Amino acid sequence: MPMVGEPSETLRSGLVVKLDPGWVTGFVDGEGCFHVGINVHADMTSGYQVLPEFTVVQHERDAQLLHALKAFFGCGVVRTNHGDRLAYRVRSQQHLLERILPFFEKHPLRSKKHIDFLKFREVLLMMQKGEHLKGGGLERIREIASKMNRCQPR
Amino acid sequence: MPMVGEPSETLRSGLVVKLDPGWVTGFVDGEGCFHVGINVHADMTSGYQVLPEFTVVQHERDAQLLHALKAFFGCGVVRTNHGDRLAYRVRSQQHLLERILPFFEKHPLRSKKHIDFLKFREVLLMMQKGEHLKGGGLERIREIASKMNRCQPR
Repeated sequence: MPMVGEPSETLRSGLVVKLDPGWVTGFVDGEGCFHVGINVHADMTSGYQVLPEFTVVQHERDAQLLHALKAFFGCGVVRTNHGDRLAYRVRSQQHLLERILPFFEKHPLRSKKHIDFLKFREVLLMMQKGEHLKGGGLERIREIASKMNRCQPR
Repeated sequence: MPMVGEPSETLRSGLVVKLDPGWVTGFVDGEGCFHVGINVHADMTSGYQVLPEFTVVQHERDAQLLHALKAFFGCGVVRTNHGDRLAYRVRSQQHLLERILPFFEKHPLRSKKHIDFLKFREVLLMMQKGEHLKGGGLERIREIASKMNRCQPR
């Protein structure tokens, strides 16, 4: 897997816009969302499923930018969100831990969204240690998630 | 007046976040707005006033970022927009021509907002030549403005 920000095959072919880290940080400060969902899930031992996700939603006219973000981070998917909106979305715990967290640790967000990123990071590091599967850990995650800013519908 | 992107006195004092051009481009791709207003104005020879403006609106929790943009561009004002929103706004024709246009010419936007920027630029260059004061020029500006994307209320 190439490093985050390294030109991918798609980028080399010139089909996808090439992005630089400064631009990505600025764009995510405006348009990105770090969210931790907690859903009831009968199959899980704890009865709950913790679902962290990183998303960027855009009008479909800027679909190319979402594909450029996907190529930049080397992970995630671009899907219809609602109406004429598309979302770039990363849900894989491994990709969030190995690609999304290190990028925003190296290139910190400048808006208050940085505080949400730090909470998101804390939840992912707890999940990495399996703490979301225990009652106390789950409660702590629920508390952290409740203090994150809601992402505005676009 | 310092160059766009040069550290200002405020920046040197460490009170304002220092921004880099890549971040500014990414953030404006997400949050910026290039708008050309055309208002009825009895005092003007043509009967109309053409009002181009560049704005970035944010929740008041990110007021510091708007002040950082003001310091970065070395022009504009930060004002209440509506409710808990603030706007960084540049309306001065001189500042738009000398500071905003050259920056986005050198650091092009990556989203479809770039097309709006090009229309905005065309209107400003027409105004610089006084074409907005003539019937034909005004009609052309009205046509360009009508084809620009509306900025979404935030």
